[in-house]
Amino acid sequence: MDAVKAPAARRTGAVDRLLSLAARDMSAVDALVLARMDSPVALIPALAEHLISAGGKRLRPLLTVAASRLCGGDGDNALKLAAAVEFIHTATLLHDDVVDGSSLRRGKTAAHLIWGGASSVLVGDFLFARAFELMVETDSLRALGILSKASRVIAEGEVLQLTRSHDLDLDQATYLEIIQAKTAELFAAAAEAGAVSAGVDERQVQALRDYGLSLGLAFQLVDDALDYGGTAESLGKNAGDDFREGKATLPLLLAVSRTRAREGAFWERTVGRLDQQDGDFKRARELIVGAGALQSTLDLAQHYAEEAKSALSTFPAQPWRLALEELADFAVSRTA
Amino acid sequence: MDAVKAPAARRTGAVDRLLSLAARDMSAVDALVLARMDSPVALIPALAEHLISAGGKRLRPLLTVAASRLCGGDGDNALKLAAAVEFIHTATLLHDDVVDGSSLRRGKTAAHLIWGGASSVLVGDFLFARAFELMVETDSLRALGILSKASRVIAEGEVLQLTRSHDLDLDQATYLEIIQAKTAELFAAAAEAGAVSAGVDERQVQALRDYGLSLGLAFQLVDDALDYGGTAESLGKNAGDDFREGKATLPLLLAVSRTRAREGAFWERTVGRLDQQDGDFKRARELIVGAGALQSTLDLAQHYAEEAKSALSTFPAQPWRLALEELADFAVSRTA
Repeated sequence: MDAVKAPAARRTGAVDRLLSLAARDMSAVDALVLARMDSPVALIPALAEHLISAGGKRLRPLLTVAASRLCGGDGDNALKLAAAVEFIHTATLLHDDVVDGSSLRRGKTAAHLIWGGASSVLVGDFLFARAFELMVETDSLRALGILSKASRVIAEGEVLQLTRSHDLDLDQATYLEIIQAKTAELFAAAAEAGAVSAGVDERQVQALRDYGLSLGLAFQLVDDALDYGGTAESLGKNAGDDFREGKATLPLLLAVSRTRAREGAFWERTVGRLDQQDGDFKRARELIVGAGALQSTLDLAQHYAEEAKSALSTFPAQPWRLALEELADFAVSRTA
Repeated sequence: MDAVKAPAARRTGAVDRLLSLAARDMSAVDALVLARMDSPVALIPALAEHLISAGGKRLRPLLTVAASRLCGGDGDNALKLAAAVEFIHTATLLHDDVVDGSSLRRGKTAAHLIWGGASSVLVGDFLFARAFELMVETDSLRALGILSKASRVIAEGEVLQLTRSHDLDLDQATYLEIIQAKTAELFAAAAEAGAVSAGVDERQVQALRDYGLSLGLAFQLVDDALDYGGTAESLGKNAGDDFREGKATLPLLLAVSRTRAREGAFWERTVGRLDQQDGDFKRARELIVGAGALQSTLDLAQHYAEEAKSALSTFPAQPWRLALEELADFAVSRTA
């Protein structure tokens, strides 16, 4: 296992600077989220609150706020856009959990198992619509364009994943296309919308979009690596979910293509036919680590984290830029 | 059965004038819908096309076009808004069919039974996002506000229906609140957005919103009556679906409240516990007709159709106004 190295040095507290800089804004975003998920139909705030109060990293709204402040924005529109981004993200989580039949989300029982799939679908629709109502309040057609496009791209990515996710022959380019659409696009749009809300300097808007996109790719790659235990020291308790679902993520795809000659029958049985026994995940993980597939995945994540940081070079070295650079390091060094 | 009278005189061809006036615009809307439901992810246009090509009445986009033209609008924004309205409607149908587990839609096998519930949820999300992209292209923040609010209200109505629809004690006010949210709000928003796209005369915008809202209520009431056969001559082949699902629509609610003293056990068994046998629907329909519940429902629909027509009195008697008046008559005289 010790063949796998964590790519970045700093392991904990790496986003303290960002969280501290954004603390007041993020409190305001949380208050806005809470106020605007309300509805006279009691099931809606109950279900939304279950998911939203479970925490989660609030990374996407944080990006909107940080991008706006880095670009010199000081108004409240960034807060509304950040809340809208969180609603879009929450809506996609609700729908995803129904689609995947997931049982846990943010460490709590998935909403559809408590209130039923129908409620999750409809409350997702509510949150999605509410996101657009919030955006309309900012009077920014451009932000609306950015986030409606992102919402459409996410749905395309989810459908693409649905139709290809058990395909052991999925190539790396298609895998990257899927995670760009289903994850990185919202990171990109969140940062881009924040920049737009600060006023228009096209170079800065593009830089923040690029930052968000690369950060999102790094983030998802690490997520997929963590599902196979990530670094040796930190085999999280939910590791193995992707394998048990036969989900074709990069660590698996690389291992399959590198070991197929001798392990074809194992992969075909465990992932192709989802016929798994005790010990199969351990064996899969050994093959993935042994083939260098986990390391390659983390290396690619590191590459995108570097791309994210270099996208920020157009900005002066001020606290918000440093905080966003640290966030890129955190994305690849995190262990959960 | 002949105690039930159809409320309006004209039975067929009542919307010929509207269809003829709007023919060219609606062809353009159809072309736009077809072009904009496309995606590189092949499953998306395949699934969307299944539903959209099945026809349906295109009533909601027709309202947007007609409202715009009645207000003197001659631009293409009304066409984009009409296509957006159709996408929102289609998205809600896809999600509804998953939520209700319906097996038929527009006479064809429901999409979720062909492609799975997951695909229906995600393609619905795609169409919803695409609707907002189309709206952004019209540069009309006001139309975006109208249709994002409508989308949110629809979701609230669907959730309210989900939590209350098997409740035999549902009162008429709550029933009307549900159908206003889940059906009439989109009719209202479709007409309102059309008026807004023609330029702003607040009196006309409000008149068309009022028209759409009343028309939508009339339309849904007649739908609910048709599920119990509507007029005696026209027992449609899908009649009975609401009863078999134990859905608390107005004909049933009125009949229950009017016959509970002697028929309480029948309603409790068939609707309360959904324990149904052959002949129960026939018996329910006899009770509903006998109690005057079907007639009361159709009378209320007629009332809203009159309200819809009178909302148009602010407009000069020109072809588009006459066509929309005929549409209100058609809504209550239709037999399918």
